[in-house]
Amino acid sequence: MEKPSLPKGTRDFGPAMMAKRQFIFNNIRTVFQKFGFLPLETPAMENLSTLTGKYGEEGDQLLFKILNSGDFLKDVEDIKLQTKNSKSITFDISEKGLRYDLTVPFARYVVMNRHEISFPFKRYQIQPVWRADRPQKGRYREFYQCDADVVGTNSLLCEAEIILMIKEVFKGLNIQDYAIKINHRGILSGIAEVIGGKGNETALFVAIDKLDKVGEDKVREELQAKGFTAESLNLLFNILNVKGSIVNKMAFLATKFETSTEGQRGLRDLKEVFNILEDYNASQDNVEFDVSLARGLSYYTGCIFEVKINNVSIGSVSGGGRYDNLTQTFGDKENLSGVGFSFGVDRIYDAMEELGLFPKEAQVSSKVLVCHFDEESMRYGLGILKALRDVGISSEIYPDQVKIKKQLDYANKKMIPYTIVIGSDEVKSGLLPLKDMERGEQAKISLEEIIQKIK
Amino acid sequence: MEKPSLPKGTRDFGPAMMAKRQFIFNNIRTVFQKFGFLPLETPAMENLSTLTGKYGEEGDQLLFKILNSGDFLKDVEDIKLQTKNSKSITFDISEKGLRYDLTVPFARYVVMNRHEISFPFKRYQIQPVWRADRPQKGRYREFYQCDADVVGTNSLLCEAEIILMIKEVFKGLNIQDYAIKINHRGILSGIAEVIGGKGNETALFVAIDKLDKVGEDKVREELQAKGFTAESLNLLFNILNVKGSIVNKMAFLATKFETSTEGQRGLRDLKEVFNILEDYNASQDNVEFDVSLARGLSYYTGCIFEVKINNVSIGSVSGGGRYDNLTQTFGDKENLSGVGFSFGVDRIYDAMEELGLFPKEAQVSSKVLVCHFDEESMRYGLGILKALRDVGISSEIYPDQVKIKKQLDYANKKMIPYTIVIGSDEVKSGLLPLKDMERGEQAKISLEEIIQKIK
Repeated sequence: MEKPSLPKGTRDFGPAMMAKRQFIFNNIRTVFQKFGFLPLETPAMENLSTLTGKYGEEGDQLLFKILNSGDFLKDVEDIKLQTKNSKSITFDISEKGLRYDLTVPFARYVVMNRHEISFPFKRYQIQPVWRADRPQKGRYREFYQCDADVVGTNSLLCEAEIILMIKEVFKGLNIQDYAIKINHRGILSGIAEVIGGKGNETALFVAIDKLDKVGEDKVREELQAKGFTAESLNLLFNILNVKGSIVNKMAFLATKFETSTEGQRGLRDLKEVFNILEDYNASQDNVEFDVSLARGLSYYTGCIFEVKINNVSIGSVSGGGRYDNLTQTFGDKENLSGVGFSFGVDRIYDAMEELGLFPKEAQVSSKVLVCHFDEESMRYGLGILKALRDVGISSEIYPDQVKIKKQLDYANKKMIPYTIVIGSDEVKSGLLPLKDMERGEQAKISLEEIIQKIK
Repeated sequence: MEKPSLPKGTRDFGPAMMAKRQFIFNNIRTVFQKFGFLPLETPAMENLSTLTGKYGEEGDQLLFKILNSGDFLKDVEDIKLQTKNSKSITFDISEKGLRYDLTVPFARYVVMNRHEISFPFKRYQIQPVWRADRPQKGRYREFYQCDADVVGTNSLLCEAEIILMIKEVFKGLNIQDYAIKINHRGILSGIAEVIGGKGNETALFVAIDKLDKVGEDKVREELQAKGFTAESLNLLFNILNVKGSIVNKMAFLATKFETSTEGQRGLRDLKEVFNILEDYNASQDNVEFDVSLARGLSYYTGCIFEVKINNVSIGSVSGGGRYDNLTQTFGDKENLSGVGFSFGVDRIYDAMEELGLFPKEAQVSSKVLVCHFDEESMRYGLGILKALRDVGISSEIYPDQVKIKKQLDYANKKMIPYTIVIGSDEVKSGLLPLKDMERGEQAKISLEEIIQKIK
């Protein structure tokens, strides 16, 4: 029989990884809740009619589709089968798919529950998503997203709170060297306008988005090929290369955007966000106004965010922005404005591992292992075990009659910090040898003293 | 455009349900960890070669299968397509499926990581599973399982600890009226032996398993049809109808099992489990020795468990048992004995809802909503908000400039217990009107006093 294996691009998370992942999740969840966001979970499977057409053609290809149950070929036209036309029969034999992100299921939820929801609706959602992407380092076919969104308000307070939440999560994770990049769709539109690239925005934004990866020359080349003149490109890089403080950049852009209402809208919004941060007494450390930040997704309409951890091989670990048309795609006529962002936990994990940032507490293990020389001492140990657990101390007893060495090995391998070895002496005296496994120290003390020491 | 919908048998969990579910999950997780179990997570998708053949033919039918990506028909034989043979092409166009339970992925994990695991390995796993079952009340196509297993030891301490964990979880959930039923495969085999039903065990156990649902007469009928004589059925019900304390039942069975080593093994194991519970100082309340408990799954080899909450429409909410062949199905030659059980969270949820057992704390909401009359007071409110969050109080500010009534309505709908309404007076004096939304009381106090009161 073949050895079992995992599907490509998927992973098991054993206890050591789980403990670290839970450390990240708990941190994020606590911050989300502290900011008034409420949890939502949606099913792994969605109707394909919900998913398709939302992520572009490439996204549709990357959806994992569920084969219909039963005699799924029954109603498929013969000709489709005879011509082996996989594409054309996909929707005949598959009605459901695995969710590709958390945004579309959230939009579906809002549309379906609009009348029960009190807006503004602040929800967070921490669940895996699936993409049939080619697996590579840092890219998996199953990975977790942690999203927080507010819909039903266009208040820029929400944008400011996103920045605050990111800062607080990173503080909790002890990640210090990072940048929250912020920009605004209006500013990008303004740039397109003033350099004479109106009508050609998509090509422009796609190219700009690559700037920090491929450099100015390549971006120039690409845009020249798309019909941008040398003059407009000079103006473009004159703007993109603006340096200095946030205030300086804004002042510079204001001079460029005299004729662009979109550009002015972008500047006004960003200024307001920074004002709110100030009123909140938040430092602007780690916050960067990045004029070249574009983000691929075309549905953003206002502020956009991206977070990078510095000095690691991983790219962005979080991103988001404001959208005005979340539910329109489901035929909703009322415009619901919203703003949200997403943490990529798998990438944060990899970055923290690379930087050695996981604290020692990011471990799950029992605090105490009760060991025993014989059956009598094991039975006596059960009472000790109960007393420890009764006060909330995670503890276990070695379940078999084996040599003490083997029991202590088990404690070491499982990183259990304390052991209590019980023999006939201990059963008689009630004094127990509590051993600190790391320091090797040992003291014979009473159960009460043990509890005090460990709590 | 069509209104979006959910796939049959799946559900969204909005904030109110999520809070209650998290209450259950947290409780279970805390108990598992207190008993030294460590977390594991496996991917939603497994290779079909891992899943098929593990759940019987019916189970195989209920697996959700993932359609291969790309040109999935390319290599399918023409004849299979021409004859529209759905069944025969299933494995040609689908290599992966969604996990059906947590036991098989756990077994796969153990086989794949055998050399890194320190045995006995105590793992817990809390994840959704998927079954293409016909949806009905209490039966969903996506639902959570919470499993805890110990493998690599045949110590009966583990069985006793399962009972202790169930008791502790139910105590935490305030579920008082329930029964942990325990039986042993050896006792069932012993019964088969002494009534002359050897070789016909499966039919016997399947029939017995229905006893409390369909009653004695129906079970008699069914077994008669399977060839059991009236005499052996009389003996069967003489045994199954044994009444009295655990000790009495055991004494009675011991007289019946004089010639059955299997029956004696069952009694010996159970006696040891009860002895351990006694050494642990655990009461035997809620524990029942149920001779007719059979549980369908044929892979159990020792103790079996089932938990029922009384006076609710839901059946069993937890079950498990000892198995000796967990990893054999993956070609593992070494026998790894293990014992485990599973909580059905969806059923526990339904039962607790039915019994009105969710405490008031099983809510997630902000503690405070900061409300404001105008922009100046909103900006002032941001400082208040920060101060509250800095000490860990979940709080939010209404993000838009709207009437106070609307802001207070929002607090009520979201069950936020406190509000602070800020106007120009408050900005000047720094004294803030903290309102207890439930009692309607209001007091003008300082920020420090507010923090003290709420913490």
